Amino acid sequence: MMHVYADNAATTAMSQVAIDAMTPYFNKIYGNPSSLHSVGQEAKEALDAARATVAACLGCEPREIIFTSGGSEADNQAILSAAAYGKKKNKTHIITTAFEHHAVLHTLQKLEKEGFTVTYLDVSKGHNITAQQVKDAIREDTCLVTTMYANNEIGSVLPISEIGAVCKEAGVTFHTDAVQAVGHLRIHVKEQNIDMLSLSGHKFHGPKGVGALYVRRGLPLVNVIEGGAQERGKRAGTENLPAICGMAAAMKDACDHMDENMSRVAAMRDRLIEGLSRIPHSALNGDPVNRLPGNVSFCFEGIEGESLLLLLDMKGVCASSGSACTSGSLDPSHVLLAIGRVHDVAHGSLRLSLSEYNTQEEVDHILQVVPEVVAYLRNMSPVWRDLQDGKREYIL
Amino acid sequence: MMHVYADNAATTAMSQVAIDAMTPYFNKIYGNPSSLHSVGQEAKEALDAARATVAACLGCEPREIIFTSGGSEADNQAILSAAAYGKKKNKTHIITTAFEHHAVLHTLQKLEKEGFTVTYLDVSKGHNITAQQVKDAIREDTCLVTTMYANNEIGSVLPISEIGAVCKEAGVTFHTDAVQAVGHLRIHVKEQNIDMLSLSGHKFHGPKGVGALYVRRGLPLVNVIEGGAQERGKRAGTENLPAICGMAAAMKDACDHMDENMSRVAAMRDRLIEGLSRIPHSALNGDPVNRLPGNVSFCFEGIEGESLLLLLDMKGVCASSGSACTSGSLDPSHVLLAIGRVHDVAHGSLRLSLSEYNTQEEVDHILQVVPEVVAYLRNMSPVWRDLQDGKREYIL
Repeated sequence: MMHVYADNAATTAMSQVAIDAMTPYFNKIYGNPSSLHSVGQEAKEALDAARATVAACLGCEPREIIFTSGGSEADNQAILSAAAYGKKKNKTHIITTAFEHHAVLHTLQKLEKEGFTVTYLDVSKGHNITAQQVKDAIREDTCLVTTMYANNEIGSVLPISEIGAVCKEAGVTFHTDAVQAVGHLRIHVKEQNIDMLSLSGHKFHGPKGVGALYVRRGLPLVNVIEGGAQERGKRAGTENLPAICGMAAAMKDACDHMDENMSRVAAMRDRLIEGLSRIPHSALNGDPVNRLPGNVSFCFEGIEGESLLLLLDMKGVCASSGSACTSGSLDPSHVLLAIGRVHDVAHGSLRLSLSEYNTQEEVDHILQVVPEVVAYLRNMSPVWRDLQDGKREYIL
Repeated sequence: MMHVYADNAATTAMSQVAIDAMTPYFNKIYGNPSSLHSVGQEAKEALDAARATVAACLGCEPREIIFTSGGSEADNQAILSAAAYGKKKNKTHIITTAFEHHAVLHTLQKLEKEGFTVTYLDVSKGHNITAQQVKDAIREDTCLVTTMYANNEIGSVLPISEIGAVCKEAGVTFHTDAVQAVGHLRIHVKEQNIDMLSLSGHKFHGPKGVGALYVRRGLPLVNVIEGGAQERGKRAGTENLPAICGMAAAMKDACDHMDENMSRVAAMRDRLIEGLSRIPHSALNGDPVNRLPGNVSFCFEGIEGESLLLLLDMKGVCASSGSACTSGSLDPSHVLLAIGRVHDVAHGSLRLSLSEYNTQEEVDHILQVVPEVVAYLRNMSPVWRDLQDGKREYIL
């Protein structure tokens, strides 16, 4: 049976390039970059080189990159830093969107308990926001706009350059959680007026357990992890050099091949969207135009997402209903609710997330099995049969 | 020339056991443990197995282990959690020692700014503390005792079981930063009445960028990193499965061979201590009896530690003056000052930290070059020459 991994938004397999870049740092160049001796200094040079690589991919200076343990930590640090800085100037209003990742939403909820006010921009129109919405929401006391670069569940790519311009004009710090975008979309933090950006290594065939926070020079940071003086005193803990070097290599690889990967992956995505749209009572989630190259997200009425995933898995297709981070929860995704899907429909969601590792044959396989499984599940559903018999309306 | 890595307290080379344990999780079992599908569930099983291994090494239940990005994060989370819990009960006094790692000290300093009171136990007597000191310091409003298991710079092993008994009797939460002890000393958290314990993978030939926090069942935790529901909602971010599996394997390996490693390493340590003690005007730092098997720490009067390290490095010996985390700083180590070394003497410090990878031939080499380099540097020092000439006292 064909096996298709179509859950690349949850995590990716590491590339050989990334593995090869990590390997020397396990037991050859294994020093602590803070050590004065030659073994430490060799490690320090590798750390500096990795920082330069990451900075070059984002269009910033090496000193503007802080390595973290991943995207969540970077999000936490960015938001808490802007909030602490804002509070000093009596600015305690933050703007975000209703479909952010929990690393952003839960951090903001913590700040709300401390007295901050948060505006959650509506994302139901076009499954996206506009820069005008941001502009209209900015107040005298706004200290931070934090919007994701691209949504992890439904793939909408936000108008980041336009939001950046609005924030710059208003003098408000702009952070973007770009965990789903880095390695997949062209990003230039300076040209796009981004003040802070979070990224995660394992979303673009790099290692897990490592990420980075870009912070525009001059912006103050608070520490999420206190301790040693690593990362210019802004992130304590011995640097995870193997993972940092692996991430830098994966990032460079992604940036070097971005155009070809984007067009090839987007073509597979478009075939899937076109094919799955033919399933009756299906609805595409997310912005149909401004969309991650690898994201396919649908709601199918009358089925349970979990059953769909389990049956697809049995047919060799690894997919997701929404975010991996919240699986295990029985509640429908806050993202699908935010774009206006009612509870019952949101339950029948499917996310297929592709990378350049996927093939046309795999797309063929998905296009064959998803309609079969959806039909099978609907046949088993009494509610759905009632609807099809015309006996009563399917209650949404 | 012989190359000797004697800075294992800063970081270690990964063992082949650990590398082999990581490797399958890069691009074979690469799923996100939170994903429902088979690739995710395979990852989840590996995560569970690693957790069980770590728990078995510490003598606790798997559900009492939270994986973190390292020792610093674990320290931060333990202390902030106990403080938050204490504050709810109007208990805002914390007891620690004067020679903790900065991951502990800086977190406590943050709490002091928020109104907590911290007692820093004196460590100048015997370069250690006693359980009686802890007992005497406990007050009605003490919410936490946090003492390291063993000191990273001078190797003193604290009377953890006795402190645990005191804390249990007083009903005070006891956290220990065991970053230098795990994998090197026998630990049993239940028998030793430890409520929380921090550890780091890369200190025992495991990977960097991963650690764990043991938390006794029932103790409340606050999150350092907010986001997804990983680690029972207590540590957000996709689990760093390769590193977690590598750490578990390294830990099991260390526990399986602990007795033989301890005695072999301690014998090398004792040869070094005996040999280096013959250098005139030298002083051993740290508890001479209760001491990490791999730690050798000396102060040599009349020399600069940095010059010593650089010359030793040229002679093939990688060593440290104190903690790697604070190198680059010109201040003498807070640990050496805490045990009563005056500034000038503290500057001339040398830490050699051994592991089971070191050999008797390497010890021979160190015993040859350290006295040579110390003598060379003293010959260059005008202050030292004055002292030797008897013209005036060397001012300490």
